[in-house]
Amino acid sequence: MSQPEFLPIQWKSTFLSLLDQRALPGKKEFLKIDTVEDTILAIREMAVRGAPAIAITGIFGLTLGAKDRKGNVNPNEVDLLIKQVFESRPTAVNLSFALGEAKKRVQGETSWESIAKIWESYALEMMVEDLRANQTLGKNGADLFPKDQEEFHIITHCNTGALATAGHGTALGVIRSLRDLGKKVVVYADETRPFLQGSRLTAFEMMEEGIECYIITDGMSGWLMNHKKIDAVLVGCDRVAANGDTANKIGTYNLAIVAHEHKVPFYVCATRDSFDLNLKTGDEIPIEMRKESEVTQFDFLKNPQGGYLLPEGKTSPIGARALNPSFDITKAKFIKNFITEMGCFVAGEIPSRLKTV
Amino acid sequence: MSQPEFLPIQWKSTFLSLLDQRALPGKKEFLKIDTVEDTILAIREMAVRGAPAIAITGIFGLTLGAKDRKGNVNPNEVDLLIKQVFESRPTAVNLSFALGEAKKRVQGETSWESIAKIWESYALEMMVEDLRANQTLGKNGADLFPKDQEEFHIITHCNTGALATAGHGTALGVIRSLRDLGKKVVVYADETRPFLQGSRLTAFEMMEEGIECYIITDGMSGWLMNHKKIDAVLVGCDRVAANGDTANKIGTYNLAIVAHEHKVPFYVCATRDSFDLNLKTGDEIPIEMRKESEVTQFDFLKNPQGGYLLPEGKTSPIGARALNPSFDITKAKFIKNFITEMGCFVAGEIPSRLKTV
Repeated sequence: MSQPEFLPIQWKSTFLSLLDQRALPGKKEFLKIDTVEDTILAIREMAVRGAPAIAITGIFGLTLGAKDRKGNVNPNEVDLLIKQVFESRPTAVNLSFALGEAKKRVQGETSWESIAKIWESYALEMMVEDLRANQTLGKNGADLFPKDQEEFHIITHCNTGALATAGHGTALGVIRSLRDLGKKVVVYADETRPFLQGSRLTAFEMMEEGIECYIITDGMSGWLMNHKKIDAVLVGCDRVAANGDTANKIGTYNLAIVAHEHKVPFYVCATRDSFDLNLKTGDEIPIEMRKESEVTQFDFLKNPQGGYLLPEGKTSPIGARALNPSFDITKAKFIKNFITEMGCFVAGEIPSRLKTV
Repeated sequence: MSQPEFLPIQWKSTFLSLLDQRALPGKKEFLKIDTVEDTILAIREMAVRGAPAIAITGIFGLTLGAKDRKGNVNPNEVDLLIKQVFESRPTAVNLSFALGEAKKRVQGETSWESIAKIWESYALEMMVEDLRANQTLGKNGADLFPKDQEEFHIITHCNTGALATAGHGTALGVIRSLRDLGKKVVVYADETRPFLQGSRLTAFEMMEEGIECYIITDGMSGWLMNHKKIDAVLVGCDRVAANGDTANKIGTYNLAIVAHEHKVPFYVCATRDSFDLNLKTGDEIPIEMRKESEVTQFDFLKNPQGGYLLPEGKTSPIGARALNPSFDITKAKFIKNFITEMGCFVAGEIPSRLKTV
């Protein structure tokens, strides 16, 4: 399996080195993060993003928090630390799942030193596990495509690649796996407004890999499906409810409806941690509302060191209002298959497939 | 009927004064245009846009061209002048229709002076006629909404207002008419990537009129229809084929499919000139492909006097490719009604309704 040429999350024992995704594709800058507070800020301000990457970063953040604390442990303090990290971003379930596990693993521990060691091991274990799961998922997804076809045209939304995970990707992992099988893949990347993860990050990853890629605006997918045979839509996800309703980056739901109308198979790529069987349907998934200014201007990419990573660009009248839900819910009926490290299955199979793990 | 506080197209006998829509909403700047070449540039570079406004501007451009020429007329020269203006933008039918009429009106004329006078009168007549048609269209559209309901939530795409027409608007004309009936209207404006006509121009017009307006990105409409009762989607159009297939700004087709899935009525607002009965279906409508850089960066709003109207902002890797169709075709089956100055009707009625005019 091929590896990307950049490592978005690197653990350096005393600090976390994060590739600042707000500076991409302009600059490859790494943030040196050595406190839990800075970790939370990096997640909230989207220096790191993507559900799996956020979860791993969050546990390294806990580790940094534990390292900063000395002496005897008050369980309330552990809970408070976990709660602070939990509140950084609410929609993805991976972080919440990992924090639950992190809490369980330190039950009864009495020193911050041992807690820091447990959390550090857990975060490293998550990185390895995420990479392995992505690689298996990628292979399972590639197997869905006809063996006797040499070229595939695929639309994707947001960024679901090495930058969103420990280093291989979910939807982009499937694309990498297809390429590794010797297939020609042409990717059409929704630019993904307002945060432009598609044009900034997916186009970057595809170019680093030498995979042909065209950026389209989020409103072009219907036109494209009428003008070219599109073989599949591949997206990632932030949370999947028990009935298959799926929270993912805003714009995913529109794309799913449009794919359905054109009979283009719509696949959700998800690792085990994205499924939340506690939720019956997508109606129960909380949707993060972000700042209006991300929609009304292009100066949102603020550099924590001051200034802007993109030039200040106001593209609406002063005082204009906007809505900015960060995610939407794609109804299960529009999803042909879930592609996971446990195999590929339809929404109706979620409860049985996940129980056997 | 209320009038907007700005006049996008003003004829000053020796020159045309055009509100430069690329500078909005930042600055209200007027371009002084006194040659046919500058008129063509203003259309191509989208200083003026919107199918009806382009048609009117094009005929004033012809007038300027005729004024620049002296002495006897060679009919080939008239044809060449018309052809130059025709090629400025290919998708909207209004310009093509107006140029055909302009040619007919000067048949047999032997002096440029008389041709300039005929074209000048025709352009002024078009302005008055467009305003009258828009006002009737607006009233007809408002009549489709329930009389006993006091508040309406409406999604719109691109800009179809005073800025796109001689001064009232098609889809925004319906919204203005509803407001004039004393109704509360809340508008959700698709920002309309890549050129941002929604966030820059529709939001500007709505704020000038004091109508509540929220900008959304083009991928948010499905989320919005699930979270709020949306009463209608109103859009304009650039060309309607005989079967009702409709060319309009890229992103319209996705919005129509999403509205259909949510049972939200989708209305196309069109004046007589937008219907092209020579075309059987939308497949025959030519689609203008524009520069990739409009998608890959935000520095596309170039000022003809040099420099940029928006700050230079590259939002994709250097060398990234993009697709940039400027329009898409909405299939007739997704359109509940055409709202016109001749009344409201369904796609199947187009041939009979237009023959009676």
